[in-house]
Amino acid sequence: MRIALDAMGGDYAPEVVVEGGVLAARELEAEVILVGREEAIYQELKKHDTSGLSLPIVSASQVIEMTDKPAQAVKAKKDSSMVVGMGLVKKGEAQAFISAGNSGGVMVAALFHLGRIKGVQRPALCAIFPSHEGPLCILDVGANTDCKPLYLLQFAIMGSVYMERVLGVGKPRVGIVSTGEEEGKGSQLVLEAYELLKRSGLNFIGNVEGKDVPLGLAQVVVTDGFTGNVIVKLAEGMAGFFAELVEEEIKRSPLTALGGLLAKPAFRGVKMRLDYSEYGGVPLLGVEGVVIVAHGRSNSKAIKNALYMAKRTVEGGMIEAIKEEIERKVEERRG
Amino acid sequence: MRIALDAMGGDYAPEVVVEGGVLAARELEAEVILVGREEAIYQELKKHDTSGLSLPIVSASQVIEMTDKPAQAVKAKKDSSMVVGMGLVKKGEAQAFISAGNSGGVMVAALFHLGRIKGVQRPALCAIFPSHEGPLCILDVGANTDCKPLYLLQFAIMGSVYMERVLGVGKPRVGIVSTGEEEGKGSQLVLEAYELLKRSGLNFIGNVEGKDVPLGLAQVVVTDGFTGNVIVKLAEGMAGFFAELVEEEIKRSPLTALGGLLAKPAFRGVKMRLDYSEYGGVPLLGVEGVVIVAHGRSNSKAIKNALYMAKRTVEGGMIEAIKEEIERKVEERRG
Repeated sequence: MRIALDAMGGDYAPEVVVEGGVLAARELEAEVILVGREEAIYQELKKHDTSGLSLPIVSASQVIEMTDKPAQAVKAKKDSSMVVGMGLVKKGEAQAFISAGNSGGVMVAALFHLGRIKGVQRPALCAIFPSHEGPLCILDVGANTDCKPLYLLQFAIMGSVYMERVLGVGKPRVGIVSTGEEEGKGSQLVLEAYELLKRSGLNFIGNVEGKDVPLGLAQVVVTDGFTGNVIVKLAEGMAGFFAELVEEEIKRSPLTALGGLLAKPAFRGVKMRLDYSEYGGVPLLGVEGVVIVAHGRSNSKAIKNALYMAKRTVEGGMIEAIKEEIERKVEERRG
Repeated sequence: MRIALDAMGGDYAPEVVVEGGVLAARELEAEVILVGREEAIYQELKKHDTSGLSLPIVSASQVIEMTDKPAQAVKAKKDSSMVVGMGLVKKGEAQAFISAGNSGGVMVAALFHLGRIKGVQRPALCAIFPSHEGPLCILDVGANTDCKPLYLLQFAIMGSVYMERVLGVGKPRVGIVSTGEEEGKGSQLVLEAYELLKRSGLNFIGNVEGKDVPLGLAQVVVTDGFTGNVIVKLAEGMAGFFAELVEEEIKRSPLTALGGLLAKPAFRGVKMRLDYSEYGGVPLLGVEGVVIVAHGRSNSKAIKNALYMAKRTVEGGMIEAIKEEIERKVEERRG
C-alpha cells in the first residue's frame, strides 16, 4: 500500500504533517509518500527515527496556500504538492492522497486530475460524525451548496458504500435531513429526493430532523452541501459552547469546583468520544481515487488517522463498489 | 392588557395550560382570557386560588388536534379555540394570542384571520436561542422551507425590531447563515440576500457559520426556514447528547461519580442557561397581531413565560415598529 501525503498542506505543515506520516508508516506498515519541498521535508524527517520505514519523498516546488483561489491556483501551480500528489494517484503510483491544505484546492485538483467516477453528477464531502449509536456519515458537507434531487440520491449511494466498505456497517440506515419526520415535510428539494430514495433499494428510513442526527437514527445522513456544512459546524460550535458553560458553572463554588476536579476524567472521556480527529478527515466521494481532506488544524495524530482511514478505504475496495452501485442505478433508470 | 390563551392547545392541555395562565394572571397583572371548552377550563380553574385575578373564559367548542392538517382544520373548525382566539385579537378584544397546540394550525389561523402586515411577503417563526453573548434570535425556523432573497431581508428587519423592542438590544448585529465567513461563500440564495442586507441600513455583519451561532457573533441570525429549523432542532439534540455522554462517563468510576454529585448544582446551572422555556415560545413575526407559538410540551412555567413575552411584545410596540420599518424599506425600493 502506497499513500501520498501532502507534506505542505495544513496550518502546522510541514512539521506536524511529516510527524503524522512517520507515525503512520510505523503503525500501519504502509509506504507513505511525502509530497512537497524536498529540503523542508528532509529537515523534518531528520527529527525522527525512520529506520526501517518506507517514507520516500516526491519533490514539488510549489504550495497552494490557504488564501489561494482554488481553481486559479490548481491551474497555475502545476508543480504544487497538491497537483503532484493527485498525479501520483492518477498514474497508479499511490493508491490514495491526503491533504490538510486548502480544501477547495483539494476538491478542484481531484476533479481536474482524477475526474469524476462515470455517472456521478457531483462528488461530495462526507463527514464522519459521532452519535449515540456510534459513528455515522453525513454528506454533502460543503462541496455543493446548491443541489438537485439526483445528487442527493447519489450521495446516499456513495455514503452507504462508505459505511459498508470502510466502517463495516452492513445495510446502513439512510435518512434525509428535513423539518419533520413525516413524508411530505421539507423543502422542494427534499420532497423530490425523498421519492428517489424511496425507490432506491437502499435501506431508506425517511426523514430525519436536526435533533435525530446525534441520536444516530440514520447512519447515512443525506443533505445538500449547505445544510450539511451548517450541521457539522454547528455541532462543533455547540460542543465548545457546552464545555465553556460547564467550566463557568463549575467555578461558581468551591464544592462544585472540587466536583469538577474529581470528574475530570469523565470530561476527558466525553471530549474523546466527540473527537473528530479520530477519523482524521473527510473523504471526497465520487472522484476516481481515494482522496481525504484533513482539517487544516490537524495534529500529527489526526494525520495518522487520516492515513489509517485511507488505508481502510483502499482495502475495502470503496472506489470499485461506488462504480458498481452508481452504474447499477444508472442502468435501472434507463431500463 | 388582555392576552388570549388557547386553553386546549399542547400535550398537557388544558391542565398545565390553565395553570400557566393562572400563574401569569397573578405575576404579570394581566387579564388572561382562557379560550376553549368552558366546562373543562372551569374544572381546572377550580384547582387554583384565583381570587382577585382576571381570568375570563371565552367558550370554543372545538379543538384543532396535533394530528389535524392545518389548512383543512382551520377552515372546518370555525369554533375551535385557535380560530376563536385569533378572532379576539382581530376584534381588538385581546392584544395577543398564545397557543401550544398544532403549530401549523396557529400559523394558518393567523394568516387567515389576522393576515400579513402590509408589505411583508412571508411571516416567519423567530426562535430565541441562548448564546455565549446572551439571547439571540434566529429566523425563520420553519414557517417557510423554500425562501427568496427578499424574504430573508424582511426576516432581518423583523428580527431586528424584535430584538430592539422586546429584548432591548439596540442596533442588533445581523448575520446571515452561510458556509464560510467571507462574502461570496454560500448558496445562490445567500449570495443574493447578502446583497440586499448590505444595502439595508441594518447593522449587518455578514456571513455567520454554524460554529458562530452559539458564540453570539450575530444577534439576529437570518436564514431560510429549512436551515433554521435544522439549526434549532440540532442544537436541542446536541444538548441532550452531551448530557447523556457526561452522565455515562461520570458513572464509570466511583471517584468521577462523586465528582458528578458535588458538581450537580453546576450541571443544573448549565441546564438553566440552555432552557428554551425561559422564552416560552416562538413569536410569529409579520402577521397583524402578537402571536406566540409555544412548544407542545410546554409546562406551566413555559406557558407563563410565553404570556410574559407576549406582554413585553405588546408593550414594546413591536407590530407598529415592524409596520414602519417594512413600509420604509418598501418606499426605499420604490424610490
